[in-house]
Amino acid sequence: MTARNAADAPVIGLDLGGTKIAAALVAADGTVLARHCRPTPATEGATAVLDALAGAARAVRAPGTTAIGVAAAGVIDPATGTVTSATDTIRDWAGTALAAGLAARTGLDVACDNDVRAAAATELPDPPGNGPGTTMVYAAVGTGVGGAVAVDGRMLHGAAGVAGHLGHLPSPEADGLPCTCGATGHLEAIAAGPAITAHYTRTSGLPADRLETVATRAAGGEPHATAAIVLGAEAVGRALGGLANTLGADRVVVGGGVPRIGALYLNALHRAFSAELMAPLRGLRPLPPRGGRDAAVLGAAALTRTLPLHHPRTPTGAV
Amino acid sequence: MTARNAADAPVIGLDLGGTKIAAALVAADGTVLARHCRPTPATEGATAVLDALAGAARAVRAPGTTAIGVAAAGVIDPATGTVTSATDTIRDWAGTALAAGLAARTGLDVACDNDVRAAAATELPDPPGNGPGTTMVYAAVGTGVGGAVAVDGRMLHGAAGVAGHLGHLPSPEADGLPCTCGATGHLEAIAAGPAITAHYTRTSGLPADRLETVATRAAGGEPHATAAIVLGAEAVGRALGGLANTLGADRVVVGGGVPRIGALYLNALHRAFSAELMAPLRGLRPLPPRGGRDAAVLGAAALTRTLPLHHPRTPTGAV
Repeated sequence: MTARNAADAPVIGLDLGGTKIAAALVAADGTVLARHCRPTPATEGATAVLDALAGAARAVRAPGTTAIGVAAAGVIDPATGTVTSATDTIRDWAGTALAAGLAARTGLDVACDNDVRAAAATELPDPPGNGPGTTMVYAAVGTGVGGAVAVDGRMLHGAAGVAGHLGHLPSPEADGLPCTCGATGHLEAIAAGPAITAHYTRTSGLPADRLETVATRAAGGEPHATAAIVLGAEAVGRALGGLANTLGADRVVVGGGVPRIGALYLNALHRAFSAELMAPLRGLRPLPPRGGRDAAVLGAAALTRTLPLHHPRTPTGAV
Repeated sequence: MTARNAADAPVIGLDLGGTKIAAALVAADGTVLARHCRPTPATEGATAVLDALAGAARAVRAPGTTAIGVAAAGVIDPATGTVTSATDTIRDWAGTALAAGLAARTGLDVACDNDVRAAAATELPDPPGNGPGTTMVYAAVGTGVGGAVAVDGRMLHGAAGVAGHLGHLPSPEADGLPCTCGATGHLEAIAAGPAITAHYTRTSGLPADRLETVATRAAGGEPHATAAIVLGAEAVGRALGGLANTLGADRVVVGGGVPRIGALYLNALHRAFSAELMAPLRGLRPLPPRGGRDAAVLGAAALTRTLPLHHPRTPTGAV
């Protein structure tokens, strides 16, 4: 698990979220050569998810491809290639031998890390470590609320690889609500996409299948839909403001699918963030990810250059 | 401001809190040779506080002493020796030329930093930086709620020297309460010593002059006093648990005067902390400071070895 991918070969980046798998074939210069997207079979368990990841890799693979970088939900140990811990977003995901399972299915070398940390790495100076004295807080608000913290241009991994799980900060807006981690009152319980949808249903009494439905109703002026989105945004803004105070952040980035709701969401988040800041930090504003929508797959592909590669046990590929 | 104190000379450590000034004469091997304590004239402004600091230094000074390390409330810039920003705990404290003012009054070289960061430095491996891959969160709960964060054995300073201000995280227990920083709902607004006292008065309708009064009534079984102390402890425990999740903390330390209330406080804090933790961090427990009650003055004295020294403008001392 020490060999490097040939520097000029294209690599596959796989971004595994709770809702969908995004795949890209990425050239050595960072150009995306091919894209693919499919749903995550989250309720079907780890084997089904590994099969879906291999299928997504197959859909973008080109001759000469030698490695896959996987950015995956949960707490991932890049050294062993396994899922150390995970919520129930993907059934039976904790303990999965992610790198070995995907290497066996594809015949390719595999590097893996937490999905948010991989995406956040695209925000760091190149080469990594080239940012002395700066602190970045990155939030990814989607099916869950994840994040990453970088100090002096280096990504924090922390005890058990846990660093970045800012969705598990206590949030005044989430008081009393059960969190996916088993605790109550965490940010994720009011600010994740499904949490906003659930809050809308609780307050309006109306069913809603997904966040997009709530966003559409908010755009149409439905007050409960608007309030649920604003509350989720304010919770994220307040938590990020408090973290900026605690860490002396120089750069705060908000990525993930939920902020794509647009101005209603972003304006509420920015207002709440600014109201938390101590005087010396006034002027700090949350930014969108530099890598745009491709940040996740680009970050995943880049893992093959910086993390241990896990080789397939069989000499030829199984794709 | 670059010369070093002679390695074998004793130095003075001054710990300036919102309530009291603690002074110690510290030998090169860390032995405390003399101690002194006096109230902080917090309502009388910066000149009175500088005078009090000089008086405290005079009380412990011995022949051969060449330098003072000051650990002070507020956001301190060690390079310029000034108070970048401060709450109203000490009147007109923001902008004070702390190092220059104290050097002029004593004729000694002065190094200064934030009080909590100085105390927390006594928790780090010696020499500093000798702790790769570890993350420490240090909380100091006293007249305010401060803190420090260290990564890989190095203390985070952060943008504008703000890092460590975990008292300015949003806290569910503080919802709606005004904070000293101007925001509302911050941890400090329910968990600082004066905040616990104020909460007791709000809920009981009974006056209380200081935290010790509330602690005595709690020890006598007064339910409002007990509830105010437990709520403050729970707020700190939850915030630290959430930060441990966010940073992947390996070590969590709780110092300051408030935890000296004892078992009622510490049990509530530990329970609340543990309830927040994600699965991979279970087993992590908050610890008392290694340096005990001397951590603050020892950390202050140690600043003279690691930070820029500001020299008096007059050739002989004014003490």
